[in-house]
Amino acid sequence: MSLLVTGSIGIDTVKTPYGVSVDCLGGSSVYFSMAASFFTPVRFVGVIGPDCPFDLAQVFAGRDVDLKGLEVREKSKTFRWTGSYSDNMDDRRTDYIELNVLAEAPPEVPEAYRDSKYVFLANTAPALQLQLLEQVQNPDFVAADTMDCWIKDDFEDLKRLLKKVDCLIINDGEAKLLADEHNLVRAAEKILDMGPTVVIIKKGESGSMLCKEGGEMFVLPAYPAAEVKDPTGAGDSFAGGLMGYLVQVGRIDFDSLKTAVAYGTIVASFTIADFSLAGLTSISKADIDGRLETLRQITHF
Amino acid sequence: MSLLVTGSIGIDTVKTPYGVSVDCLGGSSVYFSMAASFFTPVRFVGVIGPDCPFDLAQVFAGRDVDLKGLEVREKSKTFRWTGSYSDNMDDRRTDYIELNVLAEAPPEVPEAYRDSKYVFLANTAPALQLQLLEQVQNPDFVAADTMDCWIKDDFEDLKRLLKKVDCLIINDGEAKLLADEHNLVRAAEKILDMGPTVVIIKKGESGSMLCKEGGEMFVLPAYPAAEVKDPTGAGDSFAGGLMGYLVQVGRIDFDSLKTAVAYGTIVASFTIADFSLAGLTSISKADIDGRLETLRQITHF
Repeated sequence: MSLLVTGSIGIDTVKTPYGVSVDCLGGSSVYFSMAASFFTPVRFVGVIGPDCPFDLAQVFAGRDVDLKGLEVREKSKTFRWTGSYSDNMDDRRTDYIELNVLAEAPPEVPEAYRDSKYVFLANTAPALQLQLLEQVQNPDFVAADTMDCWIKDDFEDLKRLLKKVDCLIINDGEAKLLADEHNLVRAAEKILDMGPTVVIIKKGESGSMLCKEGGEMFVLPAYPAAEVKDPTGAGDSFAGGLMGYLVQVGRIDFDSLKTAVAYGTIVASFTIADFSLAGLTSISKADIDGRLETLRQITHF
Repeated sequence: MSLLVTGSIGIDTVKTPYGVSVDCLGGSSVYFSMAASFFTPVRFVGVIGPDCPFDLAQVFAGRDVDLKGLEVREKSKTFRWTGSYSDNMDDRRTDYIELNVLAEAPPEVPEAYRDSKYVFLANTAPALQLQLLEQVQNPDFVAADTMDCWIKDDFEDLKRLLKKVDCLIINDGEAKLLADEHNLVRAAEKILDMGPTVVIIKKGESGSMLCKEGGEMFVLPAYPAAEVKDPTGAGDSFAGGLMGYLVQVGRIDFDSLKTAVAYGTIVASFTIADFSLAGLTSISKADIDGRLETLRQITHF
């Protein structure tokens, strides 16, 4: 099995009540790959400028992350994002953004990746997600993320994308916006009508909800973390743990999807415990499995 | 076993995106008793004025709710509340309030109730909760609710109350305010240090969290309800289902507490499906048990 991710690589500056992390490594495909690599090899597609201070080969050293799809684009610059979180971590504000290379043509999917069976299209313009997806020959399971700006401004492209993906992984506010429906259960039903057979709604510290066409449903609280230093990357880590586990088991039946959501939840709980990737690079698969067992214990009755 | 509740009886007017319910029956002890009566007999303590248009004997007809503790106070008036909910049901606004009889002396706990073993003190001034509790001789398990105004303005009385109750059932915003702590796990720990051996935090559509001294914890999502017409009374119904189940099993070990939280969650999910008490009066215990089984299925992995 093979897992392909397309997404961003960023130079992030993040302020939270616990501190400031200046010019640290971020980006959706970076968090996703780090999370997924606990479970399965990852094929990475993304683009940076020559200004990028991070050696991704070193960042992923010892992990099975194939960087053949990393393009260093001359005469361009790496994506930059500066954001800050409120005291209660509920609100995130973007203080500064430089799209740079993300505003240009997307990277190519390398020839060697085109047979990938599992694909995650991290958030970007739906037209670009479609362009990336068209380069994959015959995927078994495609998941995508999106965000409010595309729902508002690029709805036609997004509708086309939704007809081509198996799974949409989206946060609760975006789900309500996309479905034009306040009730999350009904919003999920309306999104399933738009094309995906599975929708997974992330609710931050309120957990997540999985809905499958035909009416199957799964709801799970977030792991109750006493230590939350930086929520950046939680959603992409969730997706990475989830997709990584699905590839590892090689099945997308409902039981596998439920456990995948639980693994995503756990991996995200480690991400938010520290700045940038430190919460993920400091743990082992055994830590993830241990916390999954704890989550099982504290949620079953 | 015997379950005593002290709380309000109200004439409510409620506006939600689904309609308006004018001068309907409400109040914490009413919702609590209706919910708890699915599990166990209830001893009801509350006070109304002669203006109250509801015959509570008729409201609770066929249910084992003892109204010996219902006082009709001459020359006073029944509590009135008018509130409205935002489109997404997330925000509730009090448009109008007449405390009336609630601003006077609390009702007496009848002699015949003073041997009650399980007690729920619904939200009111902590000094009144203490005064009511002092009339119960030797309870086994006392739970209380409170709200932001008492935390802000009556903190000394509240601290005295917390040393005398076994369990605080409180919403997430109030828990953070009481503990002066944004993180809910740490907030729960700080509240346990104030006296109760159990704290149960209600998070509305995000579910609930149960923490017990010694570190035991349980987290549960809300039942994913597609039908939410009026959230009024959800918290008191939750407490009613929870306490009712505890009395029914006659144990307060951690497994019983977990199942009690699940029953509270389910009863509340029926309350919010319709205005006033209609969501509870239209169902049977079998409906509650059926939905509990569904909740178990959709949360276990």
